[in-house]
Amino acid sequence: MGSGMVRNLLRAGHAVVVFNRSRDKAEALVADGVRIADSPGGACRESEAVMTMVADDRAVEQIVFGENAIASALPAGAIHISCSTIGTALARRLAAEHQRRGQKYLSAPVFGRPEAAESKNLLVVAAGPPELVERCGPLFDAIGRQTFVVGSDPSQANAAKLCGNFMIAAMLEAFGEAFATLRKAGVPPHAFLEVMSTLFGSPVYANYGRLVADEKFEPAGFALRLGLKDVRLLLETADEFAAPMPLASLIRDHLLSAMAHGQADLDWSSVTRVAARSAGVE
Amino acid sequence: MGSGMVRNLLRAGHAVVVFNRSRDKAEALVADGVRIADSPGGACRESEAVMTMVADDRAVEQIVFGENAIASALPAGAIHISCSTIGTALARRLAAEHQRRGQKYLSAPVFGRPEAAESKNLLVVAAGPPELVERCGPLFDAIGRQTFVVGSDPSQANAAKLCGNFMIAAMLEAFGEAFATLRKAGVPPHAFLEVMSTLFGSPVYANYGRLVADEKFEPAGFALRLGLKDVRLLLETADEFAAPMPLASLIRDHLLSAMAHGQADLDWSSVTRVAARSAGVE
Amino acid sequence: MGSGMVRNLLRAGHAVVVFNRSRDKAEALVADGVRIADSPGGACRESEAVMTMVADDRAVEQIVFGENAIASALPAGAIHISCSTIGTALARRLAAEHQRRGQKYLSAPVFGRPEAAESKNLLVVAAGPPELVERCGPLFDAIGRQTFVVGSDPSQANAAKLCGNFMIAAMLEAFGEAFATLRKAGVPPHAFLEVMSTLFGSPVYANYGRLVADEKFEPAGFALRLGLKDVRLLLETADEFAAPMPLASLIRDHLLSAMAHGQADLDWSSVTRVAARSAGVE
Amino acid sequence: MGSGMVRNLLRAGHAVVVFNRSRDKAEALVADGVRIADSPGGACRESEAVMTMVADDRAVEQIVFGENAIASALPAGAIHISCSTIGTALARRLAAEHQRRGQKYLSAPVFGRPEAAESKNLLVVAAGPPELVERCGPLFDAIGRQTFVVGSDPSQANAAKLCGNFMIAAMLEAFGEAFATLRKAGVPPHAFLEVMSTLFGSPVYANYGRLVADEKFEPAGFALRLGLKDVRLLLETADEFAAPMPLASLIRDHLLSAMAHGQADLDWSSVTRVAARSAGVE
Repeated sequence: MGSGMVRNLLRAGHAVVVFNRSRDKAEALVADGVRIADSPGGACRESEAVMTMVADDRAVEQIVFGENAIASALPAGAIHISCSTIGTALARRLAAEHQRRGQKYLSAPVFGRPEAAESKNLLVVAAGPPELVERCGPLFDAIGRQTFVVGSDPSQANAAKLCGNFMIAAMLEAFGEAFATLRKAGVPPHAFLEVMSTLFGSPVYANYGRLVADEKFEPAGFALRLGLKDVRLLLETADEFAAPMPLASLIRDHLLSAMAHGQADLDWSSVTRVAARSAGVE
Repeated sequence: MGSGMVRNLLRAGHAVVVFNRSRDKAEALVADGVRIADSPGGACRESEAVMTMVADDRAVEQIVFGENAIASALPAGAIHISCSTIGTALARRLAAEHQRRGQKYLSAPVFGRPEAAESKNLLVVAAGPPELVERCGPLFDAIGRQTFVVGSDPSQANAAKLCGNFMIAAMLEAFGEAFATLRKAGVPPHAFLEVMSTLFGSPVYANYGRLVADEKFEPAGFALRLGLKDVRLLLETADEFAAPMPLASLIRDHLLSAMAHGQADLDWSSVTRVAARSAGVE
Repeated sequence: MGSGMVRNLLRAGHAVVVFNRSRDKAEALVADGVRIADSPGGACRESEAVMTMVADDRAVEQIVFGENAIASALPAGAIHISCSTIGTALARRLAAEHQRRGQKYLSAPVFGRPEAAESKNLLVVAAGPPELVERCGPLFDAIGRQTFVVGSDPSQANAAKLCGNFMIAAMLEAFGEAFATLRKAGVPPHAFLEVMSTLFGSPVYANYGRLVADEKFEPAGFALRLGLKDVRLLLETADEFAAPMPLASLIRDHLLSAMAHGQADLDWSSVTRVAARSAGVE
Repeated sequence: MGSGMVRNLLRAGHAVVVFNRSRDKAEALVADGVRIADSPGGACRESEAVMTMVADDRAVEQIVFGENAIASALPAGAIHISCSTIGTALARRLAAEHQRRGQKYLSAPVFGRPEAAESKNLLVVAAGPPELVERCGPLFDAIGRQTFVVGSDPSQANAAKLCGNFMIAAMLEAFGEAFATLRKAGVPPHAFLEVMSTLFGSPVYANYGRLVADEKFEPAGFALRLGLKDVRLLLETADEFAAPMPLASLIRDHLLSAMAHGQADLDWSSVTRVAARSAGVE
């Protein structure tokens, strides 16, 4: 994800310093004009803004609160923009800790796969103090196709992103159950998929539906264990607000069953296998 | 639904005899060139094919097996095309009974609201013996935008139609849970809807999502009690094939809760109120 | 079940005429003093009361409304007591049809396995017009350990019986999930069972828990397909009253998954295998 | 809980030093012969064993790893016995940290309310190295009616305790759904409860069933928010082992709905109100 975002920032005329855990991925960007830093802190010590895009909450905590990390290096008044899909609790902690240090914080998670990052087709979901969001508008415009501002509290963007992933997971679960029943009724998945692609008129249905109908779960566009991570984070947020999400719970349970059957590194659309197994048609 | 379908059949050059329980609706079509019959049997006594489009299984049973009804009037060799959303068990019974009488039978349920029927934008999901489906192709072309053939057993089209409605219901349930959590997190439904409309790029998400965000459940495009009827039929089909559909079960339970709260005649997208009530944000 | 009930009726001094589909089972009771009839109708043509105890709704319909059956033979004023576990809809139909014929009707389903029927340890759950229930008291006392009157509408006894079976199924599902998790955590099922037997102090927990911990599902005390039948009937009753029962839905889905994995004729406590399979520990 | 346990330890001849956050509760035990300490560390500095019984994981962490706390005060070779209902992750951390310090650790959570603690009727579920469990046997005998050893890894006792609470919650959920449907069918909860009390022959069913039938949720024997805490911990354990527990998820969602409707401090049996509300019969 990061490479595409960086290249689009460069194209928009921004000076970019990059830190990546595996340095060779960063090196590949030198030709494009970035400077490489040896630590997260080194990457933002003289920056107006730092964007973070890493795998999970733990990784964010390390690069922000660890050694030679962002919190201790980012200049006062500079902005940390977190683009990773993280939990609302961590977003609130980031906001509080940056404020304590005189720094600024925004959440701006994105929808889109690496290809979308490369082609500037990400959807950016931003939240934070309005003047700050506006100030960062050019950065969002540089990396994405469209920016949506969903609230003035940064964690609201994270809640919205988690809910968006949940909407996709709900579609997958529905496909899984429909395909399982239809297979037992003698209707081929591809025949049903064609109807659904036309009915919904959505590339998301067409693309994910094809993965499932083809049972093509490798290579993983989005690994199942990461999908589980996101559903866990959503359920934590829902718990925090005392909002029951029974469908999210159902999805979590099916993702866990998939984990128990060795699907951690398959694409998360393979959660559909759980419904198939349950109906005895795997 | 029927009016639009009839007008499009006339436009395609077919001679149409109409029977409708409330005769005045049928009368309105006389100017368009139809002949009116006094009974279902009267409408098909001299026809090559009869299309039925009624509310539910019971209504189909009445017009097919009741007095002056289709089964006793349809000429041998003529075809009954059932376009209603009915159960797979009834479809199998129709196929068997028509065969016993030397008649033919196809299932061809449709996706689309009355406006789509009027504008020839229905999606037709057909199943039955291939030569029969081919022979009826011109009728499907006359009423719909696209025809999908999903199997050679008529009931397979009914299974596919029920699963299609289930896919929509799954989307509604997901919207309901996401909106409830996001409202408690301070994210307005419309803000999230905008992201989802763009992410999925689907008019179904945009249109239903707007109904839900606006909480505009009257007049009902599709009454909740009819949605419940369809989910019941799907669960019967799933039961028959020993295919568990936990998400369909969850939707059924939420539709029942909606019934218990007086929402039978609201649009079925009002099932989203159940998640809201459960989270205490109605 | 029937044999034990008949013997206890004889012991209490009642004259009994028996009809059983497989006549040899009835023959075995001749030595005990029963008279054998050739049809359900023959068994009750001169009786004050007829008790029916058969497998399911369809069987009740046959012996009541079929040829040489109860409805046409039972004398006016005589009572039909249905002891089978049937649905509330059928109970209401029985009440209405008997009334139309000047006959009486009570529902009196029972809890207990064949051994309990033999040893007069059944629990009788009765409902119907109070004076009628009272009049039949001696019959209930003859076959069971205790009689519970739960309402004045016969179908209420059926609703209560179905809910009682549901309570047992809920316990089984809970055992299944707990055992699956604990096995993965290294706690042997028998160790946990011992705690639960003591905590609940219930023979139902001890006995069913042992079946599950031992994975001893044959011979079936109560076949899984019959358990599924009862949960289906309960969900129909719940639907009729617009009362969502998500746990009953969950159990239905797990029973269906068990059916899909060939467990129809195992004891219904084998539904616990579904949780085990889902966790990958079967 | 603590008072009863302390008094029974004294009765068994043990010397007891007590620390309690609200000192007055500890003072009340002075007459019984305890010595009072000013800190958790002070309570165990010269002890062979320290038993902890507090509200939740956080409280355990404070009294073990906080200032003047147990980890830094307990003599090498002495044993920490955690009797609280805590998560398996914390149990593993406690085991590791005590080992690092040359101390011993056992998990021994208990079933039973304060009255049971007082009357020495607790059920003790213990796990840990066998020789250690045996050495602590006299302490378990002093406080409880019966001790169950479920494994050699301390966290296994915590998993078993969480599963035991889940079994009770499953019973509550089943009661809630059955009562809701039966009320709509006209069967009074108390009538059904009488059947269930006899069928299961369990004081747990009789006692909890009465609370629910009477809708007597105050004062709380066990607050709903604590029940939710335990289900959360169970789901974390289940997640850790990739074991889906859909019934536990359902219970969590219903407890969350209860929280959203202001039931945090009612008895957790009030979770049954969620099914009632959902059916429109609250």
